[in-house]
Formats: sequence, structure tokens, C-alpha cells
Amino acid sequence: MSVIQALTGELSKLPGVGTKTALRLVYHLMKGSRDDARRLAAAIREVADRIRPCELCGNFSEAELCEVCSNPRRDGSILCVVEEAYEVGAIERTGEFRGRYHVLGGHLSPLDGIGPDELRIAPLLERTRGDEGASEVILATSSGVEGEATAVYLEGLLRPLGVRVTRLARGIPVGSDLEYVDGSTLAEALAGRREM
Amino acid sequence: MSVIQALTGELSKLPGVGTKTALRLVYHLMKGSRDDARRLAAAIREVADRIRPCELCGNFSEAELCEVCSNPRRDGSILCVVEEAYEVGAIERTGEFRGRYHVLGGHLSPLDGIGPDELRIAPLLERTRGDEGASEVILATSSGVEGEATAVYLEGLLRPLGVRVTRLARGIPVGSDLEYVDGSTLAEALAGRREM
Repeated sequence: MSVIQALTGELSKLPGVGTKTALRLVYHLMKGSRDDARRLAAAIREVADRIRPCELCGNFSEAELCEVCSNPRRDGSILCVVEEAYEVGAIERTGEFRGRYHVLGGHLSPLDGIGPDELRIAPLLERTRGDEGASEVILATSSGVEGEATAVYLEGLLRPLGVRVTRLARGIPVGSDLEYVDGSTLAEALAGRREM
Repeated sequence: MSVIQALTGELSKLPGVGTKTALRLVYHLMKGSRDDARRLAAAIREVADRIRPCELCGNFSEAELCEVCSNPRRDGSILCVVEEAYEVGAIERTGEFRGRYHVLGGHLSPLDGIGPDELRIAPLLERTRGDEGASEVILATSSGVEGEATAVYLEGLLRPLGVRVTRLARGIPVGSDLEYVDGSTLAEALAGRREM
């Protein structure tokens, strides 16, 4: 049945959705109210049409500037650098960060042909000089090898500009048992131990 | 961000999709090409607008009659009764059934207020009398208690009409080890044993 096959195909392109799951979703949509399905279609359409990168930080945005960058109460002197726009949400949910963000668009990965020019690094340097004149840059790139390398690379560029460059603390996740924490994390936790 | 929240809300209504999964999907849609997202939206819209129950058997259909009912090479004298339209696909994929289908729309479940009148039973009886004049009805209702009860109830109505009433065989699933087969299935398999 053409339209059903078409939808199954589109759905199975989604992450974590195989053909079986896609079919289940299609059947759910056909069983449920037509309006629910139309609302879903409209919502997807809306996002596709209206969401774009914030021109300043690269975060998802409905306007030229995202909600963070356009919020005068956010402190432009502290920039939190993340790899992907969807990581902004995680930090925002903590409610602990009052600065602004800068989305790199990934991490350095020479093997995949992703060098400094493929990432939004120039704009970042610009923001430490420009009107914002960021005085601290928190490097929140991923804790994997590439994320680390990217952080080190950025530090090399930022330090000379006289900005404070920091990295998210590494250590034991809150509420986890020592025995389940991997060795390297434990080592970081020891190295980063603090006075009580 | 309103449109993102809206989409997240709509997506989390889908079966097996929680808020976290919904968010992941939203981000995927925002990261990926706009056209992919638009195609998905259009495909959902198409299904919502064009799929309706086949007027004869209740299967999903884009036309008055579904592909099975409108296919002259399908044998209208054998009807396979399923509870839900999405179960038709499973039987079709076997490629072993050349008859037609009849979708009940569920199974008898007095506690949920689902009695004979809530199911497409009258049309079924009609089809055993009508032009199709079905001579055999295969009861493929679910193998749970309600499905069984529904099958027994239907048999009581169909038998007097002089139609052959059959039920899908129960037994060991192909390729499964005896030790993992539950007792009642094993019992059914024994009772239904056949000459080799």
C-alpha cells in the first residue's frame, strides 16, 4: 500500500527506528485519531520550517538570535562551548549556568576530514574579542579522545587572547558507586580531589 | 522553544516513545536535512488523509476496497478473521493465504464494555451469506483468553450457517527449543500432534 510503505520508509530513517518499529508506528497512526496524526505532521513541518541556527551561538533558534543570546539577563562574558546544539538543553536544564553558549558543530576528527575550518572556531575567537568580549570560555566538548583534542586545540588559540579557559570537572557521577566507576574516571577524580 | 516543545509533545504520544526519545528524534530532525523532515511530515499527512477502512473487510485501504478485496484472484470463499487490521500484513507476508480477510476491530471484552455489537460481527455473518458466500471461516483471533472466547462465540454463530469454521493451529513455534516452550503451548502441541 504505497502511502503506508512511504511512511514506513521515512520513519525507519529515524535513529533507533527499524522497519518493525516503523510499521508499529504507522499502524498506531492509522488506528488513532486522524487529527493526532495531522498534528504530528504539522509539528514536524513547523520545526523543519522555523528552526534555524542562532546567528551568534549556533544554538537552535526560531529567530535570528536564540532565547539565550537574546536574553539580556544572560552574561555574555562567560561562554560555554559545546559540540552540538542539542547539548545546550542539558546544561540549561541544570539551571546553574547564566552565561551564553557557543556551538562548535562537532569536534576535530581529521580522519573524517573535520579540521578547524569545519567547526565554528573563528566565530568563537571573534566573540572573545567582539562586543561580548567574553572573559571566560568553558570548554564543554565531549570527554572522548576527539573532544579532548578539540579542547586542547581551542585552549591553544584562546589562552593567547588573555581569556580564562576552563574545562568541565571530571569525576565520580553523583550517586554512583565507586565499584562501578571506570578506572580512568576514578583516576581523574583522584587527580581533581578538593579540600572539604 | 515552542515549536520544539510542541513536536516533542506530539512525538511522546507515540507508543514506546518517552520524552527522552522524543527529544532525540526532534534533535535528529533539526540536525538532518529540512527536506527529510518535510518528507516525513508529508508522509504522515498522506496516511492520515488517505487511509481508511476497506468497506468490505475493514483492512487498511486507500480506496473503497482494499488491495485484497479488490483483487479478483483472491478467493472470497475463504475468510480469515483477525482482530486488528495490522494483523493482515503478518499473514499476507507469509504468502500462503489466497483467501480474503475480515477485521473484527478487537475481541470480546465485557469488562471494557466491548460486546458483540462493538465488533464487526454482523458484516462477517453477512459475508458468509452474501455474494461472497464464504464456505470457510478461519478464526485467527489472538490466542489469549479474550481471543479464545471471541473465537468460540463466533463459532457458535457461524456453525449454524453451515460454514466450515477453523482455527489457526497451535504448537511449537518453528525453530524454538522444547525447553523454552511454555507448558500450555506444549500441551496444545501434543493434543494437536499429526501423523508424519
